[in-house]
Amino acid sequence: MVYLDYAATSPLLPEVMKAMHQAETRFFANASALHTPGHLAMNQIEHTRELLARLINAEPEEIIFTSGASESNNTVIRTFEGHQIETSPLEHHSIIETAQEYRGEKLPKLYSYMLVNNEIGEVLNLAGVVERAGRDKVIDCPEMFDKKNGWGKPLVAVKKGAYVHSDLTQALGKMPIDVKALGADYATFSAHKIGGPVGVGALYVRKGVPLKPLIIGGNQENKRRGGTYNTVGIVGFGAALEYVLREKTWKKYDTTIRDLRDELAERILAEIPGSSLNTDLTPGVSLPNILNASFQAAEGESIQLYLDAEEIVVSTGSACAAGDTKPSHVLMAKTGDAEVAHSSIRFSFGLENTKEDVEAVMRVLPGIIERLQQISTIAADNSR
Amino acid sequence: MVYLDYAATSPLLPEVMKAMHQAETRFFANASALHTPGHLAMNQIEHTRELLARLINAEPEEIIFTSGASESNNTVIRTFEGHQIETSPLEHHSIIETAQEYRGEKLPKLYSYMLVNNEIGEVLNLAGVVERAGRDKVIDCPEMFDKKNGWGKPLVAVKKGAYVHSDLTQALGKMPIDVKALGADYATFSAHKIGGPVGVGALYVRKGVPLKPLIIGGNQENKRRGGTYNTVGIVGFGAALEYVLREKTWKKYDTTIRDLRDELAERILAEIPGSSLNTDLTPGVSLPNILNASFQAAEGESIQLYLDAEEIVVSTGSACAAGDTKPSHVLMAKTGDAEVAHSSIRFSFGLENTKEDVEAVMRVLPGIIERLQQISTIAADNSR
Repeated sequence: MVYLDYAATSPLLPEVMKAMHQAETRFFANASALHTPGHLAMNQIEHTRELLARLINAEPEEIIFTSGASESNNTVIRTFEGHQIETSPLEHHSIIETAQEYRGEKLPKLYSYMLVNNEIGEVLNLAGVVERAGRDKVIDCPEMFDKKNGWGKPLVAVKKGAYVHSDLTQALGKMPIDVKALGADYATFSAHKIGGPVGVGALYVRKGVPLKPLIIGGNQENKRRGGTYNTVGIVGFGAALEYVLREKTWKKYDTTIRDLRDELAERILAEIPGSSLNTDLTPGVSLPNILNASFQAAEGESIQLYLDAEEIVVSTGSACAAGDTKPSHVLMAKTGDAEVAHSSIRFSFGLENTKEDVEAVMRVLPGIIERLQQISTIAADNSR
Repeated sequence: MVYLDYAATSPLLPEVMKAMHQAETRFFANASALHTPGHLAMNQIEHTRELLARLINAEPEEIIFTSGASESNNTVIRTFEGHQIETSPLEHHSIIETAQEYRGEKLPKLYSYMLVNNEIGEVLNLAGVVERAGRDKVIDCPEMFDKKNGWGKPLVAVKKGAYVHSDLTQALGKMPIDVKALGADYATFSAHKIGGPVGVGALYVRKGVPLKPLIIGGNQENKRRGGTYNTVGIVGFGAALEYVLREKTWKKYDTTIRDLRDELAERILAEIPGSSLNTDLTPGVSLPNILNASFQAAEGESIQLYLDAEEIVVSTGSACAAGDTKPSHVLMAKTGDAEVAHSSIRFSFGLENTKEDVEAVMRVLPGIIERLQQISTIAADNSR
C-alpha cells in the first residue's frame, strides 16, 4: 500500500506503539487517584506535558490535554460564546460551524485562524491577524472572568480586548512552532497527525486568558477539562513528541519530503494534460508535505477510487467532510471554481514516504485521468 | 499488588489489548475517509456499535461514541441548557457541576439520575424517576428542535415534556441493562470501567429525542459528534463488550464478587472496632462490587496511604474528586456526617479479584486502623 493520506491521520510510530503497550500494564491506574499507581500514571502525563511545552515554547501549566483537535477548537470557540468571533473560510469545520453556532456581538473578540490549512497546505499570515487583533487595545471585560467556580479567572490582568487562537494541528512537527513568537493566546494540537494515537489532543492556553471548560467534571487539568486521564494515549503522544524533538522532523519535511512533493507536482504537470496545482509550492507559502491538484474533466472521488483499487491511498480533501457531495469549502474559497474543487485530490506525505511512492502514483495516475476524461467526453457528446 | 480500585478504572483485559494491538496497524486509517483502509476502520466501529446496542437493547443508530462518560454526561446536560434539570446529590461531578452551570427555567425538563452510584454502589430507583417525569404529559417544545443545521431534529414526534438521562457507567457489565425497560431517553457508558481503554465512551440517544452536539466538527456520528474516530479505542471497547456478552459478567459479579465483597464487609465489622458500612449489602440495593466503609477516628486518606504502602490499592471515593479536602459529596448526602465521610474507604472489586485479596487486606487493615485511632486519641488528649 502506498499511503499518501498523512494529513488525515498517520500510522503509529513504532516507538509510540512500544511506549503505549508498556503503559497499558504499567500505568493503567486512574491518574487522579492518590495511590502510588495513580501517581506513577500522573508522572507520565506531566512528562508529555513538558515535552509539548518545550516543543512549542510554552509553560507546562499552559497546556490542557483533550480528546483531540476538534475538542480543543470547540473549547476555545465556546469560551467566547456570544462574543465576536472572526475566522477565515479556510478553517476546519470544527471552527467554522462552531463559530457560526455560537458567535454573537459582545466584546472582547476572538480571532481564530489556522496556521496551516489541512487541504492545500497553505501557511496563513498569523502575524497579520495578531496585528489586526490590536494587542495594545485595553478593554475591560469582567464578564469573561466573572464565572461561578472560578472558571475563566485570569492569572494576570487583561491587557487587551482581543484574543487570537490558532489551530496548529497540521503545523506541529512540520515546521518550528513558537506560540510566543506567533502571538497566539490559544493553540490547538493533535497527537495522531504526528504518529501518536487518535483520541488525544492538547490546547495551549496562554497564562492570563479566559478559558471555560467544555467538559465539566472532576478536578482534572486544574478544573479546566473533566474526564478520566487517557494516560496510555498521552504516553503515546509523548513518545511521538520525543520523536519530533529528537529528529527535528520539520527539517526532514523541509528537505526530503519537499523534494518528493515537488517531484510529484512537476511530474503531474508534465505528464497529465489538464492538470493544475491548488497548492503553491513556494517555500514558506505552503508546508512541504501537502500537494493538492486538480484534473480537468475528472472527478476527485472517481480518481480516489481508481487509485484505491491500485492500493494508493489519497483523499479528496478533509476526511472530516467525507460523504459531503458539496465541493471542498477550502477550494471554493480559494478558487471560486466548483469544477476545480470537484476534480481535486490531496496527496499528503509523511516521513515514511519514498521516491518509490511517487513512482507508484505516476505509474497509474496518468492512465486513470485519461480514462476519466474520455468517459467525461463521451458523456458530454451523448448529452448533446 | 492487590488492586481494589476497579470503580476508578480497570486494567485492560488481555483480549482487549490483543484486539487493540492488531487494530493499530490494520485499522489506523481515518475511518471517515472514502478509501478502503478507511472503510475497514469504519466496519470495526460499526461492529462495536452493534455489540453495545445488543448488550443494552438499543438500536445501533441510537449510539454515539464519545471520549468518555464525562463527555457523554456533559453532552446531555448541555442539550438542555437553559431548561429545567433535576439531578440527585449522589451524581458524578460531570452531572452536578454541569447542571449547576447550565440549568434554567425553560420546559421541557431533564431528569438525570445515575443507575448505580460510583462511591457506595447504591442502585437508584430509576423507575420512580421515569414515573415522576410524567411520560404521558404532552408539551409542545419546538425550540428544542428548531436548530440550525438540523441538530436536535426529532426523528419521531415528541410525546412528552420530560426526558430521562441515566449515567450507567458503573452499571455496565455489572448488572443486566435494558435501556428500553429502564425507560431512559439518554444513557452514558464508559469503556474503561469494563476492561476497555480510557478515552472511549458512548451515549445512548433514544430515537426521536433532541441532541445538540457538544463537539461540533465534521460529519462524524451523523453530525452529532465531531472529531476523528478513535478506531483503535473503539475496537478495544468492542473487545470488552464481547467479553461482557460472552461471559455474562453480571452473573459473576452477582455470585463470586458478591461473596468476596460480603466476606470483606463481615470481617471488617467483626475485626475492626469502630467500623461501619456505608454500602447496604442487600442484593438489589447495591451492586455487588463496591464496598464503602468508615473507620471511626481514622482518616480515609491516611488509611489509603498506609494500605498503599502495603501495595493494596483502594480509594477514598471518586478519583475525579481526588485532591479535594472536602468530604465526599455522596457520603455527606447519604449520612450528613462529615466524620463518617472523612473516614471512609471505597473497596471496588473486579473479576480478577480473589479470596487472597480479601485476606491480604484483612492482614494489615486492622493494624492500620488501630494505629490511626491511637494517634487520634493522643492528639485529642494533647489538645485538651
